[in-house]
Order: sequence, then structure tokens, then C-alpha cells
Amino acid sequence: MSRIERSLTSLEAEALSSPEKAFNLTDGHPRQPLTASQRVITDTIPAMFDEALDRPFADVERCAHAAFYGCTGQLKAPIGAGRILSTYSSTIALDIVARVLAERISEVAVLHPTFDNIADLFRARGLRLQPISEQQIDTGSWHPPANVGAVVVVTPNNPTGWILRRESLRRLATACARSGQVLVMDASFRGQDPRAHYDTYQTMQETGVEWVVVEDTGKLWSISELKAGFLSWSAGSTLRFVKAFDEVMLSVSPVILLLIAKMAADARARGFDEMHSGLEANRSLVATILADTPMELTDPDSRISVARVTLPADGPDAHDTYCALVQHGIHTLPCSRFYWARPADGDRQLRLSLSRPAVTVERAARALAKIYQPVRRQAAVSR
Amino acid sequence: MSRIERSLTSLEAEALSSPEKAFNLTDGHPRQPLTASQRVITDTIPAMFDEALDRPFADVERCAHAAFYGCTGQLKAPIGAGRILSTYSSTIALDIVARVLAERISEVAVLHPTFDNIADLFRARGLRLQPISEQQIDTGSWHPPANVGAVVVVTPNNPTGWILRRESLRRLATACARSGQVLVMDASFRGQDPRAHYDTYQTMQETGVEWVVVEDTGKLWSISELKAGFLSWSAGSTLRFVKAFDEVMLSVSPVILLLIAKMAADARARGFDEMHSGLEANRSLVATILADTPMELTDPDSRISVARVTLPADGPDAHDTYCALVQHGIHTLPCSRFYWARPADGDRQLRLSLSRPAVTVERAARALAKIYQPVRRQAAVSR
Repeated sequence: MSRIERSLTSLEAEALSSPEKAFNLTDGHPRQPLTASQRVITDTIPAMFDEALDRPFADVERCAHAAFYGCTGQLKAPIGAGRILSTYSSTIALDIVARVLAERISEVAVLHPTFDNIADLFRARGLRLQPISEQQIDTGSWHPPANVGAVVVVTPNNPTGWILRRESLRRLATACARSGQVLVMDASFRGQDPRAHYDTYQTMQETGVEWVVVEDTGKLWSISELKAGFLSWSAGSTLRFVKAFDEVMLSVSPVILLLIAKMAADARARGFDEMHSGLEANRSLVATILADTPMELTDPDSRISVARVTLPADGPDAHDTYCALVQHGIHTLPCSRFYWARPADGDRQLRLSLSRPAVTVERAARALAKIYQPVRRQAAVSR
Repeated sequence: MSRIERSLTSLEAEALSSPEKAFNLTDGHPRQPLTASQRVITDTIPAMFDEALDRPFADVERCAHAAFYGCTGQLKAPIGAGRILSTYSSTIALDIVARVLAERISEVAVLHPTFDNIADLFRARGLRLQPISEQQIDTGSWHPPANVGAVVVVTPNNPTGWILRRESLRRLATACARSGQVLVMDASFRGQDPRAHYDTYQTMQETGVEWVVVEDTGKLWSISELKAGFLSWSAGSTLRFVKAFDEVMLSVSPVILLLIAKMAADARARGFDEMHSGLEANRSLVATILADTPMELTDPDSRISVARVTLPADGPDAHDTYCALVQHGIHTLPCSRFYWARPADGDRQLRLSLSRPAVTVERAARALAKIYQPVRRQAAVSR
């Protein structure tokens, strides 16, 4: 398969299926030991099976929503209003969004770069895409064209860590409201960056825009992919979310919802602080190791669980660097596919996961540093 | 919404969201207390989080596959051959099947009646459907027409409990192989009926047919929807399963896979016997309570976790009976939508779940019996 054809998830899946000694730094999912207080929570899972049978599902679900939206300050989310669906994952939620949008519109504007899977899901439902950049949104230089029926933003963005700030959201939502476009927000990485914890629901509701938001518990806690995606929408939207949801699933596990409620309460008390400092330590570790090389962090200000590294123009590109690291049993992601409209723009960036034990991150960063040492020596010799 | 427009899952979701005192007998998912040996297993879940981090994912997944396919005698399933995908659920697996089939063909034959969601998923991917009946398959009177690119069977069938027997499977697979049609099998209820435990993979492989099978752990154990769907296919198939899978998910939870492996081992030792006798006892309970009414079990020979009840022609139909039971806080399913091509064929059948505590099943059956007593008295008076 060509470089461009392989999706990022397919590279992540390959890393996941690799043999014992492989180091998987491909995906943004947390894969590290539980903290002490998280372990106290997972120890209560056996008792949750009875609780899940005894309590009405709607009650269990509402408590999970209240705890989860609450722990990131999303107080105006429509909890208990019948406009939040709990799905297996944020991807399943986004697929439902793509499906119902395709019943109404034919073209969407999608953030560029962002995880390729988002563009793929919308394309698979027959929608035409046009790219918009973080800068266009920040500067307000972009106005939704008439042929675009929806705008899809990702905040914090993956892989850049960019945040849609409150004023930019207000401006974008107001523009969408004025021209009748749906504003779709994927906030899957929200928990990782406190700068994204202002109440986006309140901001959107104040503009009158028709909005759809996907949230995700799966990037926050290392609990073996026991997670949910939450899909909510503005009052009065005629998009057929419930019908599309009913077609793919009946419900998530009540035990997972009970677990999410407890993890969210712990996040609020101490878990987010622990996560943020852990990610920051691993990001600094990478920066320190790369300081002595021609590479650097692409997004030093990012707070999310992945870090892009900018590779020098005169060495191997991202794909060759990725292949060289795989030879050492280390799996990362070349960034070309994040630039779903112009893949070449990502040919000099590599993405590393930071939600890993520090020793794993260090090993990957050192292996990466070594690849570029010969290049520098050669450059010195030929100078 | 009209009677026909509401999907079965939407009725199941309504029951799930009902308040505390409601009795939910809508879905075939198990909702009853754990057995003693299942409780021993769920008590080990906290330790699984470390195991899931320590062991390679591919190893955890292969063990789950071996245990699960093994416990129903599916020894020739392609375990370790790279042709089994673990999905969040059987529905997600079926949606992948529908999606990849739509890339190659435009019309499929689908079993009728069966759960409406199956037809809906194939339609949603743009495929045209034609119905085939259990009887047509049993008698061999149906031959795949040239315009049909795939045949979709469900065994054991939901709601009838019908089993595709080995000789019928061989004949159907041979016919499909001869005319180049894909044979799709949904075996989600397989564990519930030992008559479906002959090795269907071996039988299909002997005919040379291009096959796709969906299995499901979600109907077997009352572990709060912690489940997986497994999607496998014949060697050499060019359908793009992996690409479609990568687009919707990265992996199921390793903890869920570890749990499935243990539950499957327990099923083999004693769990299936316990489940089969529990379902049989609840089915007999319904039959006994209805013996004194003009109603009867539609499928007395069925072994699966739901039972259809045939309503008398001179009383309220299934939809009105469903509504009357909801007034008593009891949720069931009218069967019209199972007949996805001719809904009126199911207007005199109601489906009850049997994977419930006996007291719940008894309460529902008694409420149902009461609805028809006035009718009988009236009939006696007017005679």
C-alpha cells in the first residue's frame, strides 16, 4: 500500500498487534499504570455489576453525564434534556453526525490538519470536504461559504494541540448562525487542556447556532479502553441523531458509565492535575533529548497527549524516520495523513504519544535522536 | 411516529430509559444476577488492568478468540490467521459487512423475518434487499438469483429461534459458491442453542463459498454489556474489511477480551448448561401461564433468550397489546417490524425476553394473560 493510502488508525493497529518487545507510541490513548486513587476506583468494579442491574439505566447515565461534563466545566451541556447520546466511542458518535448531516447537506468544511479519520468518516457518508485552518479561524479571515452546510472543528486539535478560544468560537458560531450552518465540535481531547475548559455549550447557545458536540472519555484515563463517546446537540435541531443511534446500538455498558462517573470525580479532585503534570514531564523529556539534535517540538505550547516533532529538511522524511524506528521496535506516526487535503505538508513531522510510562517515551526519543546524529556528522564532514 | 416507522431498537431504548418500576422484557440481552462462578470471574477484573498493559494485545485477543469460538465448537474458525476482527458489538460488525459489500454489489437476499436492524443496516449502505424465508432455505426451494450478490442468514434466528442445520447450510453454501454469491451469517445467538454448535466454519470451507460470519458475546453473559462482536471471513476474500474496521475503531478493550476468555471457559464447564436450563425454565413458565388463555408460544421449540407469543385473531393486535402492557410498566416488542418486508405478517405476535429473573418473566406473562381474559369472557357471553 502506498504511503498516502494507509490511514493513521491502520498504523496504530499495526503497532497494537506488534510482538512483545515493541514500543507503541502511535495513539493518543492512555497506556500506563493506574494512579493510586484510580486503582481504588477500579477495585470497586465487581460491585458495579449489581448496581448496574438495580438502578434504572437513565439514572446511571445521567449521573455519568453530570460528572463528566462537570469535571471540564461544561455546565450548560444539555444534561437530562434528552439531547445527549452515550456511544461506544467518539468515532461512533462522529459517524452518526456524518450520517445525519448527509441527509441534509452535501459539503462540509473540516479543520486541516486534524486526525485523518474525521475527514474519512465524512467522506464515507458521501459528503464533499473543504479544508479550513486553525489560523483562518483565529484571525476570523474565513467565512462559511454558501455551499458549505456545516463546519467541523476539533478542539483541542489533534495533533497540534491548538485550542479554539472562547472569542474565536463566539465569532465562528455567530457566523454559522447567521448563514444557517451547523457547527460541529469534536472535543475528544478537552480534558487534557484546562484552556479548553471554558463552557463551550454556553458560548454556542448564546449565539443561537445549530450545534453538535462530541465528547470522549477515552483519552483521559488508562482504563483499558472502557470508555464512551457523548454526542449532544442544540435544542430544536431536526437532524435525526436518535434514529441513527438506534440503528447502530442500544446502549453502552452501565458499568462503564458508573466507572466514568467515579473517574470524573477523581479527575476533578486530583486526577487532572496528575495527568497534566505527567504529560508535561514527558513532553519536557522529549524536548530535552531533542535539544542536542536538529529536531524540535512542533507545538511546544501543546498540552495534549501527543507531541509532534519537526524533522530537519536535509534528513530522512517522516515516513522514512517512521520506518527506521520500526526497525528498533518503536512505533510512531508520520504526520502526512493528518494533512488530509495536502499530505505533503506533514512529510517532515512525526507524532509521538506522551500517555506512556516515562521510560517508554525516553526510549523512543533517544532512538529518534540517534537517527539524526549520523546526518549531522555527515553534514559536518561535507561542510 | 407511526407503528411501522419505529424500529425495534427504538422501542428497546424507550424501555431502557423508563423509570424505576418498569419491567423491561424488550431486548435479548441478558439482564439478571451473575451466577456464583461468574461472580468469581468478575471479582478478578481489577487485576486485569495490569494484565492488559503487560501482555501484547495480539496475544490477549487470540486467547479470547480461541476460548470463545472453542466454547461453541467452531474449531475451524480462522483463529490467529489475521481474519478475525474484534468490534464493539455484532451490530458494528454487521455495519462493516454492509459497507464493504456495498463496494462490490447492489442487492442482497436477507432472511425474513429477522431483527429489523439487520435489514436497516444493509439498506442504509444503499443495498437493495429481497426477502428469503427459513422454509425456502430448509426445503432448498430457493436458489440465489443472478442479481443478488450476497445472502444474509441469521442462525439461530431472532425472533423465531430457527436453526440453519448443517445440511441446509451445505446446500445453500454450495449454491452460493456455484453462482459467486457471498454467504453472510449472523450467529449472534449461537451460544444459546447447542443445535447450532456444529462447526459452521468447517462446513462452509468445504464448499469453497466466499463467507463472512459475525459472532457475538453480548447475548450470553449478564456482564453489563461488556462485550465484543467478532467478524471473520474466508481466505482470499477481496472485501475490504480491515479498511472499514480501521475507519470506525482501533480496538476493543483488552480487559473485555480477558473477561470474555474467562466467561467462555466457564460457559464450557458449566455456564452454558446453567444458561440453557434457566432459559428453558422461563420459557416453560410463560407457556404454563398462557395455557389458560387463547395465546400460545409461537416457537415452542426455540431455545434462544426471547419467546414469541401468538395472539388470538379476535383480540387486540400486537401493537395494542404492547401499549396495554406499557400501561402496567411492562415493556415487550410487537413483532411487525421483524417482518421487514411485510410488517402485517407480525401483527399478531409479541416478543418477550427470557434472560431475566423468573419473577420478572412471570409478572409479564401474568399481565399478558390478564389482558385477554376480558376478551374471552366477552366471547363467551356473546356466544
